[in-house]
Amino acid sequence: MLERRHLLGIQDLRREDILEILDTAESFQEVSTRPIKKVPTLRGKTIINLFFEASTRTRTSFEIAGKRLSADVVNVSAATSSVSKGETLIDTARTLDAMAADCVVIRHHASGAPNTLARLTKASIINAGDGAHEHPTQALLDAFTIRQRKGRLNDLKVAIIGDIAHSRVARSNLHLLTKFGTHVWLCSAPTLMPVGLEEIVCENRRFLHTTNSMEEAVRDADVIMMLRVQFERMNESFFPSIREYFRYFGLDRRRVDRAKPDVIIMHPGPMNRGVEIATDVADGPYSVILDQVSAGVAVRMSTLYLLLGG
Amino acid sequence: MLERRHLLGIQDLRREDILEILDTAESFQEVSTRPIKKVPTLRGKTIINLFFEASTRTRTSFEIAGKRLSADVVNVSAATSSVSKGETLIDTARTLDAMAADCVVIRHHASGAPNTLARLTKASIINAGDGAHEHPTQALLDAFTIRQRKGRLNDLKVAIIGDIAHSRVARSNLHLLTKFGTHVWLCSAPTLMPVGLEEIVCENRRFLHTTNSMEEAVRDADVIMMLRVQFERMNESFFPSIREYFRYFGLDRRRVDRAKPDVIIMHPGPMNRGVEIATDVADGPYSVILDQVSAGVAVRMSTLYLLLGG
Amino acid sequence: MLERRHLLGIQDLRREDILEILDTAESFQEVSTRPIKKVPTLRGKTIINLFFEASTRTRTSFEIAGKRLSADVVNVSAATSSVSKGETLIDTARTLDAMAADCVVIRHHASGAPNTLARLTKASIINAGDGAHEHPTQALLDAFTIRQRKGRLNDLKVAIIGDIAHSRVARSNLHLLTKFGTHVWLCSAPTLMPVGLEEIVCENRRFLHTTNSMEEAVRDADVIMMLRVQFERMNESFFPSIREYFRYFGLDRRRVDRAKPDVIIMHPGPMNRGVEIATDVADGPYSVILDQVSAGVAVRMSTLYLLLGG
Repeated sequence: MLERRHLLGIQDLRREDILEILDTAESFQEVSTRPIKKVPTLRGKTIINLFFEASTRTRTSFEIAGKRLSADVVNVSAATSSVSKGETLIDTARTLDAMAADCVVIRHHASGAPNTLARLTKASIINAGDGAHEHPTQALLDAFTIRQRKGRLNDLKVAIIGDIAHSRVARSNLHLLTKFGTHVWLCSAPTLMPVGLEEIVCENRRFLHTTNSMEEAVRDADVIMMLRVQFERMNESFFPSIREYFRYFGLDRRRVDRAKPDVIIMHPGPMNRGVEIATDVADGPYSVILDQVSAGVAVRMSTLYLLLGG
Repeated sequence: MLERRHLLGIQDLRREDILEILDTAESFQEVSTRPIKKVPTLRGKTIINLFFEASTRTRTSFEIAGKRLSADVVNVSAATSSVSKGETLIDTARTLDAMAADCVVIRHHASGAPNTLARLTKASIINAGDGAHEHPTQALLDAFTIRQRKGRLNDLKVAIIGDIAHSRVARSNLHLLTKFGTHVWLCSAPTLMPVGLEEIVCENRRFLHTTNSMEEAVRDADVIMMLRVQFERMNESFFPSIREYFRYFGLDRRRVDRAKPDVIIMHPGPMNRGVEIATDVADGPYSVILDQVSAGVAVRMSTLYLLLGG
Repeated sequence: MLERRHLLGIQDLRREDILEILDTAESFQEVSTRPIKKVPTLRGKTIINLFFEASTRTRTSFEIAGKRLSADVVNVSAATSSVSKGETLIDTARTLDAMAADCVVIRHHASGAPNTLARLTKASIINAGDGAHEHPTQALLDAFTIRQRKGRLNDLKVAIIGDIAHSRVARSNLHLLTKFGTHVWLCSAPTLMPVGLEEIVCENRRFLHTTNSMEEAVRDADVIMMLRVQFERMNESFFPSIREYFRYFGLDRRRVDRAKPDVIIMHPGPMNRGVEIATDVADGPYSVILDQVSAGVAVRMSTLYLLLGG
């Protein structure tokens, strides 16, 4: 059993923790293929989905994961909550805690918000994305998918391409993959490449590579992971036009051909087709984008199970 | 068991399919009268309510139907979903499918959206209203109510009155009732009467009648079905004023008196009292409007049961 | 068993009713401390949360209470409902009733809305806050907390401070506490003090006191109950500035010191820290604000159990 109460990020997880989550997810993946997709594991547990940013896949994935474990799942979204009445996040979390919630799954625009809550609540906190900081269950489901396809998490070349600066997905994947000794190539426009990345993976610095050339990033890659252009976080001055963006950092078949013959193409979704990824690539034979979604339910069932004590 | 995976519209259903849904609904109607309104039929099934338009009664009715069958029901509304991030509908549906949803109940403003999804998903698709195209469970619950009151679905005169052009309810009812040999009188202002209706019911064309005179429509009618004036879909140039609308196409007691003595008054809701229907008629002895709502839960339980395999 | 179908307000409850709800809540409070926080009491019952105003704590508290009793809970919020299509509240309620809802928990901006519904529905109606009228489960959870801390509900001095005029919390607490013979001191700016309060507690008028001086209100108080400044209900002309408000009606340690040594500090939430209450007081040793939240789940489980027949 995971010796933690919270899942706040990948950075502070040990490799054993990660492997335990992935191994447990494998056994839970089978549950979603049964005619009766439900086990009584978390009956009588209360899970709160506290989402301050719009989300379909992550919120729905956690809700389905919780329900397949027989937990009671309650959704609280900023749009209909008393957040609009000026309550602080901490008071909201303490309130849910006082209702004897067993777990609060939180998505928030402020980096570090889940860590703050974790110091104050009896409930387990799961970070479902905090600002540009971390999105640990996304990295875990990505690792699950990679391991399933490649048989290992080490000695691979993974290219992560797009708006690195604003991407918690890139950060969490960078932490996870370098921990296992996989080479991560971050590729972005100079304006979308964050500073300070080397410090956050200091012990595994030799596995981190950066480039502004997509050709260099995808060359002989085992995995190409495209990031969503986050129009809502970015102002348009970052790049001149969508056409221009696609020309430099979009994934088309020509670029896929530069990677290894058995490359897999990943995307955390939602996709902007024709912006960061061509439609024939998104739907093509190398794409494992929907496998990622399936893995997401299994990984979240595993995380909930391990944190809430089974 | 219904030999279909989806319920997309009434047009392509056979009479036997319709009767099977109605007969099964009768046995489920009893469940909602029990002290414990729950059967274990769909335990471990995942139903997603994917609503791109505001709705109380249809969404709530499907949610209650699913829960009374012990299914896990997950709501996704456009307001809080990644639809706002520019994801295509198809990608949203594929994502839910990859989470091993058993059924996606979809309401969408685009006619044909559910048909598109049905070609792409393993999940059963139920159309909960698509543009001005179809709203099959509404027509089924209307048929359930008519059959319960009149003892048959053939040889009746049903007047459907109002904004025919924008009404998926009118279209689905027209398909259903003419299949069974009931005469449907569509009554509307010339500007609100669609073209091409005769083609869509070509084999049953002799049961379709149109008129601009409400007096003609309701004369000796067995059923008067009023449609909601959809202010949100219509621009005001369609008719000069509410008062004017009511004068030509509103249902008051004087018009009810022209129908058969045992006429029943129907409305799919939500009603605009005083616009398309007078309050004393809506609440009067001929009204079966709340019976329609009750029938809705039973018909949706039946549909979910038949599609998801019981 | 409570001889009522509805919980509309505190005003028309007898002392025995209140005590039965509180006593039952005590036994339910234990459920939320178990590893499996669920009892089968209301299996197969349908509870609708019909919220026309934003809410986190009340809606979530009812939802958790319902689910821990194994009921099916369905949320309907104005934001995503057909209320936006112009349906009347009464038609919405009748519709939910026709779906065989066992209970409708309603929050509405119009005083008296729950009473109107109660006359029209078979479902039990629980008032979760109606305009500036009543919020009975809040007063019940407050009484639960006071009784747990003070051992009694009579012969206390309770100071209620803030925007009395707009506060349903103040009104429901005033009814409840004066029924039991506790002295209630309402303290507010003259502009925020409603007229006619004496009439509504006429038989217990001698327990009602009003003052514009916070010092007088808190002196030797057993309980200080702060109200939220409802920025969204108030226009700014009521008081000149937040700083000014806090100076006259904010709770700081200096004022707490004027109360009894074992005073308890209450707040219905959400708090505006630094506006009506200082942070060190909100989080200090006298504060029972989070106990109120816990009590809320227990009191709502008790209410649902007693109304829906166990």
